Amino acid sequence: MEVTRSNFKDNLNKVYEAIEESDFLAIDGEFSGISDGPSVSALTNGFDTPEERYQKLKKHSMDFLLFQFGLCTFKYDHTEEKYIMKSFNFYIFPKPFNRSSPDVKFVCQSSSIDFLANQGFDFNKVFRNGIPYLNQEEERQLREQYDEKRSQANGAGSLSYISPNATKCPVTIPEDQKKFIEKVVEQIEDLLKNEENESLELEPCTGLVSEITHLLKKKNLFWPYRIGGVIKKKKLFTWERYIVISKVNEEERKRREQQKQAKEQEELNDAVGFSRVIHAIANSGKLVIGHNMLLDVMHTIHQFYCPLPDVSNLLTAISRLIHQNIFEDLAKLAFFRFNLFSYYFVSRLLDTKLMASTQPFKEIINNTSLAELEKRLKEVPFSSPKVESADGFPSYDTASEQLHEAGYDAYITGLCFISMANFLGSFLSPPKNHVSARSKLIEPFFNKLFLMRVMDIPYLNLEGPDLQPKRDHVLHVTFPKEWKTSDLYQLFSAFGNIQVSWIDDTSAFVSLSKPEQVQIAVNTSRYAESYRIQTYAEYVEKKHEDKRAKRKCTEDSWKEMERKRLKTQCTSYVSQSRYYCVNSFTGTGTSTVGKRSMSPIQEETSSDDMEEEGQDPEYDQTDSCAESLPDGKKRAKKFKKIKTGQVPAGKSNVRAHVFLFCLELL
Amino acid sequence: MEVTRSNFKDNLNKVYEAIEESDFLAIDGEFSGISDGPSVSALTNGFDTPEERYQKLKKHSMDFLLFQFGLCTFKYDHTEEKYIMKSFNFYIFPKPFNRSSPDVKFVCQSSSIDFLANQGFDFNKVFRNGIPYLNQEEERQLREQYDEKRSQANGAGSLSYISPNATKCPVTIPEDQKKFIEKVVEQIEDLLKNEENESLELEPCTGLVSEITHLLKKKNLFWPYRIGGVIKKKKLFTWERYIVISKVNEEERKRREQQKQAKEQEELNDAVGFSRVIHAIANSGKLVIGHNMLLDVMHTIHQFYCPLPDVSNLLTAISRLIHQNIFEDLAKLAFFRFNLFSYYFVSRLLDTKLMASTQPFKEIINNTSLAELEKRLKEVPFSSPKVESADGFPSYDTASEQLHEAGYDAYITGLCFISMANFLGSFLSPPKNHVSARSKLIEPFFNKLFLMRVMDIPYLNLEGPDLQPKRDHVLHVTFPKEWKTSDLYQLFSAFGNIQVSWIDDTSAFVSLSKPEQVQIAVNTSRYAESYRIQTYAEYVEKKHEDKRAKRKCTEDSWKEMERKRLKTQCTSYVSQSRYYCVNSFTGTGTSTVGKRSMSPIQEETSSDDMEEEGQDPEYDQTDSCAESLPDGKKRAKKFKKIKTGQVPAGKSNVRAHVFLFCLELL
Repeated sequence: MEVTRSNFKDNLNKVYEAIEESDFLAIDGEFSGISDGPSVSALTNGFDTPEERYQKLKKHSMDFLLFQFGLCTFKYDHTEEKYIMKSFNFYIFPKPFNRSSPDVKFVCQSSSIDFLANQGFDFNKVFRNGIPYLNQEEERQLREQYDEKRSQANGAGSLSYISPNATKCPVTIPEDQKKFIEKVVEQIEDLLKNEENESLELEPCTGLVSEITHLLKKKNLFWPYRIGGVIKKKKLFTWERYIVISKVNEEERKRREQQKQAKEQEELNDAVGFSRVIHAIANSGKLVIGHNMLLDVMHTIHQFYCPLPDVSNLLTAISRLIHQNIFEDLAKLAFFRFNLFSYYFVSRLLDTKLMASTQPFKEIINNTSLAELEKRLKEVPFSSPKVESADGFPSYDTASEQLHEAGYDAYITGLCFISMANFLGSFLSPPKNHVSARSKLIEPFFNKLFLMRVMDIPYLNLEGPDLQPKRDHVLHVTFPKEWKTSDLYQLFSAFGNIQVSWIDDTSAFVSLSKPEQVQIAVNTSRYAESYRIQTYAEYVEKKHEDKRAKRKCTEDSWKEMERKRLKTQCTSYVSQSRYYCVNSFTGTGTSTVGKRSMSPIQEETSSDDMEEEGQDPEYDQTDSCAESLPDGKKRAKKFKKIKTGQVPAGKSNVRAHVFLFCLELL
Repeated sequence: MEVTRSNFKDNLNKVYEAIEESDFLAIDGEFSGISDGPSVSALTNGFDTPEERYQKLKKHSMDFLLFQFGLCTFKYDHTEEKYIMKSFNFYIFPKPFNRSSPDVKFVCQSSSIDFLANQGFDFNKVFRNGIPYLNQEEERQLREQYDEKRSQANGAGSLSYISPNATKCPVTIPEDQKKFIEKVVEQIEDLLKNEENESLELEPCTGLVSEITHLLKKKNLFWPYRIGGVIKKKKLFTWERYIVISKVNEEERKRREQQKQAKEQEELNDAVGFSRVIHAIANSGKLVIGHNMLLDVMHTIHQFYCPLPDVSNLLTAISRLIHQNIFEDLAKLAFFRFNLFSYYFVSRLLDTKLMASTQPFKEIINNTSLAELEKRLKEVPFSSPKVESADGFPSYDTASEQLHEAGYDAYITGLCFISMANFLGSFLSPPKNHVSARSKLIEPFFNKLFLMRVMDIPYLNLEGPDLQPKRDHVLHVTFPKEWKTSDLYQLFSAFGNIQVSWIDDTSAFVSLSKPEQVQIAVNTSRYAESYRIQTYAEYVEKKHEDKRAKRKCTEDSWKEMERKRLKTQCTSYVSQSRYYCVNSFTGTGTSTVGKRSMSPIQEETSSDDMEEEGQDPEYDQTDSCAESLPDGKKRAKKFKKIKTGQVPAGKSNVRAHVFLFCLELL
């Protein structure tokens, strides 16, 4: 279903209902561009850490507009053994709703626009009829504006009826006008006395509106009246302005005030617009599926919630605090908690590109691009899922590819997830044809977002520590900016095959095939003048030192900034914070930062594990209501038992401990 | 006529012809936004100097895209006493033409997009079918790329046929592959020997393309062959890649090379695209009309020529140089010459909004917005001009307003110009109904662009000194950022009526009604702690000092930058520089910077003047060919005699002197 500004309000409840009843959701976004950085290669270094990649995307991709959002909800029908899907394709545009509303500027990247144009993307629909939205801060400001106006109207009264320019400055009435103004006051006094007269038309008085308003206010004569209807009359070549003053009785005033308030509330809702759909998704507790969804998630938070947090996950935030020995600074932790990525999504996320790139799929899926993946999953050993569109919803035909329409992409993503999830069921004994979105089998994929073109870290972890592979075969090389890749090959010609990952004009990572060569390379370069080689470990250590030094310098200004942000953010979030706090903290795993980790998926899909899972592969379907409101205990129980030598109970305890520890701090 | 990528090439000659035959042109642009600055009020301070306004627009408005360009040509038919017009509405979009071409990023401002959307603007036409363009630097780079490729092909030969990735780095062949590669070499040697065989299909060798290419090159075996047509064959679940090597004989090679060159030239032309129209307009020597055209002109230069010059006019540039005592630095002057605003437009510019805001129109035209102006000029004492569209060109109906379509706006602008020009003819004795675009009557308006919301300077002068009104009633006030306009009114309450022009959060200009109060205000503020008042003159002096100090600091880096820019710019402009040089310098007037000037128009439209003009109000129509190639002498003769106490002859001499002086310097 195509949703624009014209039919958004009429269909919003349909959207809420579809989200509420679904087993899982698939989402996809189309943007006005991907990167305003210098080049793709600089943005996607093969040895980026997840944190670095996050920072790069935050810096270079957030000025684009997410202008089409696809949502496809999937609900399993157990009797018919098929999924019922409802797909929505939202067009989004930050249409300013009034003169004082934010005038959003966004960047377009020609190549992206051209790409979408070639796919038949309808830009007119976006710009003419896109659904508006506000982020949380804008919503708060707008609400405040309305509140302020209202309190003025309920207080001294008069101001709400004065024209917006009237109160800008105290008015000094020019000498030659004083007589005219005195006369106006007299006229109004007459109007007051005479019950029959309802309104008064002043003599032409261009430019004196504010003077008159001010004088009336001073004389306490203004309250029950309304200056309005400044009318213009044609007179020869020019126009003259008249002011009309009408009586308004108390009852009428109240009725108008109420009407106005109702209208204001509706205006506010209209202005928040599409953000309401995002809030519903984020608060639904449902599993949210996306394909290569890191950018989608980042854009969604940035555009509909608030500027992205400084760090991508909770543990990074906490470990930073520990590192800085400022754990006692409670305000700071509170700030971090508010700023956390996962804070915005109560719902869990699952990335089908990561899933397809992981065992057991990795071996049998060559190409994980969405279109190719969808084709591949129609063939053995996979099978196409049985999915039908709900009554009144249009169906997509996967044969007539409508790729890069967000709604269609979301739909395909959902299909891919179902096929892969069901495939996991074949490893159970007895095998299962249908694996639900609540199955333990897919939990290892939760809240891990695929990282493009990183050599040894498949995903960014939203709630646990990021993987830290040993990069003991990697060198960091700096050199003159004239150097090309060939110079690096030349330099390392003695070391056999190497791989070069450019960082910028004057530095690159070079990975050798044998870790034991690393020290030789560093040693031989000791006396070189034009270039410098250090190990990856040395490079990381140096970078951390630099950062610490820099952070120390800006500590004061930082504190100030946080104080401000806390002040604004706390107010709006305080009502929900308890609930989110529980979720954020229980979602995080151990604190085993620093070890070389493997993808947990690879460890977990051994047949042993699968059989263990098989005993209780799914939660009771009737549990779905409680499920949508996760709390610490339930999630702790559900948490995937990872083979790390700890017994599952111990694992839960660690989490519970971290959780309690944090609660104490707050 | 609507012109998009689809019909651009077919109609380009029609456009050229229309420009060539016209008496004058009208232009208009539509942009994706107006300002990315903090607020309109900060961008348009009432006491901006023209130079400051130019700098603000340069900084805050150039990241938007000019995506629709209207051109309307007007040709006067003396027999029928009517204008024949041809209007073109171009859709423009920087579609990347290949992988290495610039991927332009541009900003969109929601309010502007929304405004255009409400006017029915067709964004799909822009993004799907807009005409591409290149600026001069991009054109130069592309030309260089082609030249480089060609010279390689004509030299050692082989490289042009190698796949683009092949020469990235020297190749070390893995030990286990060496045998395979050796076999490939043998196969090729066989192919060489055997005249019957035309091509050779290697065994599957995924990923070895560059290795093989490299080896062949090393063995000097490669030249007459072509590695190409890497084909893929399906094999069970996967694809395999084969390399096909085909013989190419010398004759065939040359034919292909020529074909390729012709194709490249066409590609180059296609890539330069819409810039060719702009070049034709700028070089036509015709009068170019626009309404409120400063932004249009700036965007046009920025988008289709090069980044905007650092200063807006020649005299500012020279006076800066004098100020810095670096006149001897010839390279610098040459740099400035290349960078000058007026350099890009041989054609003269005329702004109808400025014209309508000046005597004798000022008194009888209330509203100078394009739509209102057009309506007003249909009524007495003006008269609608007789204008018909040329055969094969659609006509616009001014009754069914299509405002904000660039082609229509250009058309209306042309109509307004004709009406106003003809009105000037009524002051002649005997009165004339038709005043041509070459009439002396309109010369006072040449190359002066309207300045929005500047209180006392109506225009930015492209070729003479900018007006410098005495601002002896103006104060510059700095204060705490909490202050509002009302605080300023409070502060100056003793001084009667004041006007406040905000500069930023903590400063504003305050103009008093009486200049003699200025010193009192400054004196009384001497011991104030929270605010500071200085006269406008003091403020300007302080600013100049700061600038000079800053400039001193960055002198070295500046020299370096200029050296680089000179190097790149000289090469591409050198062929035309002589011609433009003459034009730029004769266009500039006196060096009477520093005096309080009035709008020259106001001085020149006295009836005396008009009668003087009446003797020779227009140039010989047959002169139009020479007219389109202005040279110093002719323009000097034509130059408007301004009443400044100097006799016209003396005036010309000053100009001639400046001109010769500059020529000497170059």
